[in-house]
Amino acid sequence: MRILGIDPGLQTTGFGIIDCQGRQLQYVASGTIRTTRTPGIELGDLPGRLKIIFQSLGEVVQCYQPSVAAVEIVFVNVNPQSTLLLGQARGAALTALVAHDLAVAEYTALQMKKAMTGNGRAAKAQIQAMVQHMLRLPGLPGPDAADALGLAITHAHAAPMLDKLASQAGLQRRQHAMLKGGRVY
Amino acid sequence: MRILGIDPGLQTTGFGIIDCQGRQLQYVASGTIRTTRTPGIELGDLPGRLKIIFQSLGEVVQCYQPSVAAVEIVFVNVNPQSTLLLGQARGAALTALVAHDLAVAEYTALQMKKAMTGNGRAAKAQIQAMVQHMLRLPGLPGPDAADALGLAITHAHAAPMLDKLASQAGLQRRQHAMLKGGRVY
Repeated sequence: MRILGIDPGLQTTGFGIIDCQGRQLQYVASGTIRTTRTPGIELGDLPGRLKIIFQSLGEVVQCYQPSVAAVEIVFVNVNPQSTLLLGQARGAALTALVAHDLAVAEYTALQMKKAMTGNGRAAKAQIQAMVQHMLRLPGLPGPDAADALGLAITHAHAAPMLDKLASQAGLQRRQHAMLKGGRVY
Repeated sequence: MRILGIDPGLQTTGFGIIDCQGRQLQYVASGTIRTTRTPGIELGDLPGRLKIIFQSLGEVVQCYQPSVAAVEIVFVNVNPQSTLLLGQARGAALTALVAHDLAVAEYTALQMKKAMTGNGRAAKAQIQAMVQHMLRLPGLPGPDAADALGLAITHAHAAPMLDKLASQAGLQRRQHAMLKGGRVY
């Protein structure tokens, strides 16, 4: 199973890809999509910035052909305007995935941090260190890419249990992942 | 100029298309994209619902080949969770437009209502009646489609002025539409 983890945001969207065979995890690729400092795109050009997220993620999907995506469930910001912008960025990211018929699992940052370190309130640096350790990377991944790789690893750990549940209950994996997150739209 | 107006939402996204030649407006099509009661799509399946918005709007663009889109600027809801969902729906709608390389102008509901009736706080029924009158429709359009047609008409009225400004200042039309909205991201 090849998993694409995504930490969505309007300014930066982190992505990370791992291969997972049983308990074996293998790093494939990771990076950050930035919508600032792009020639021809102004900060106020929201449609143009969403296009960068959509197209860049589409290229990642086409290039690495993941079998499933794990996307962070974003939370309400203290600034409602920021919440609206983050929502639109996440909408563009999700759209890039479903436009390529990719199944999407969703996890909160708390679930990811807990799965990675046992502590739902772990600091960014702890996630970076744990990702480096688990994927045997030669150096620390950047914080956005580390979160994205952490989401992919979280799904790698959760998927066998979700599959078991799914085969027991005859439900689809994604619905389980969403139930697990306790998220109701 | 063929204008596609869009009133984005997670449950229902209204769209309306008009042709505009000078001061002459001609109705082309309108409708509502619904993400509820779709076979195989659960209410909690946000990625699946965003896919419906993205694909359906893509079909509208491909079918009617508009030259520009006018999209409502959505506002923060009292419920932050609803704001987040609305943001994601608008993100999927904008992505469908920019994925087809369509230029996007943005207007607030207040701007649309003021352009249509002279009153920024006009009731839905007033917008419906004015859209019916201006486009010489045989019956009242539905509220979502009326808002979308109202956005298209608003852009038809604003575009000549924006073009003039653009040619004076050497700026692109969309940037002007956004400046006009006073919206800074």
